[in-house]
Amino acid sequence: MEKDHSYFLKRAIQLAEEGMDKGDGGPFGAVIVKDGEIIAEASNNVTSFNDPTAHAEVVAIRKACEELKSFQLEGCILYTSCEPCPMCLGAIYWARPEKVYYALNRQDAAKIGFDDQFVYDEIGREMNERKIPFINMMREEGLPVFQKWEAKEDRIDY
Amino acid sequence: MEKDHSYFLKRAIQLAEEGMDKGDGGPFGAVIVKDGEIIAEASNNVTSFNDPTAHAEVVAIRKACEELKSFQLEGCILYTSCEPCPMCLGAIYWARPEKVYYALNRQDAAKIGFDDQFVYDEIGREMNERKIPFINMMREEGLPVFQKWEAKEDRIDY
Repeated sequence: MEKDHSYFLKRAIQLAEEGMDKGDGGPFGAVIVKDGEIIAEASNNVTSFNDPTAHAEVVAIRKACEELKSFQLEGCILYTSCEPCPMCLGAIYWARPEKVYYALNRQDAAKIGFDDQFVYDEIGREMNERKIPFINMMREEGLPVFQKWEAKEDRIDY
Repeated sequence: MEKDHSYFLKRAIQLAEEGMDKGDGGPFGAVIVKDGEIIAEASNNVTSFNDPTAHAEVVAIRKACEELKSFQLEGCILYTSCEPCPMCLGAIYWARPEKVYYALNRQDAAKIGFDDQFVYDEIGREMNERKIPFINMMREEGLPVFQKWEAKEDRIDY
């Protein structure tokens, strides 16, 4: 059987179910593919790892980067059983895969109690209107560190 | 010296500088405080860990949760040298600390080459207008897994 987009997305859905059944975390799975082969698989591990960042996409990105020994997913495709939440979307942009395929969407997730939409809404809000207060201070004390980065000759950009 | 918000935010800025000087990653640092004491410290480790998700806030959240043996940062305050990017903002909402203090902002970050604003813009875009294509398929095949989650009696909500 040729491995096409349906094959890999089906595998992501299967990982979602397996992880849920094992009690690893929520019903979410992801795989990362390079040159037609899976290089990383993950399911959600938030409650089993005690790690709120252990969403399937983030865990898969970490594993794939470890495999590739790179902080960039050049030429990779991410398949995820559900539309990424804002955290995972951010992680995807920093990892820079070529494309993302997903099955379920954020409305489906909201219906079973995962309120990604709430986080999407908060991101667009002004700091002083957010449910978690974000307080700014000491900007002047931070600036020299950024200036030092700009002047750093051996810095590794990412 | 009493440990106040300035003390902890200064420590986050110090971690940003130390991490950069050691070559761990970009000039970003974060600390997490509970009951007036630091329970986790981190600097950016993207390039040294080969992990695009290893932003200071994410690393600090993971450490603090490990310390607390919990996937929630109840009663904690996060101090970060720079306004969180969308990934870190998402991670913060999932971890649910009480408050966030930050020094530098996203415009400062953009000026030294960290284009958080680009990711903020992409999050608000329709799927078909994004720089990384997001393609939806097989929603129907994913739905039974979500239904199974809803019906799961021993599930751990998060």
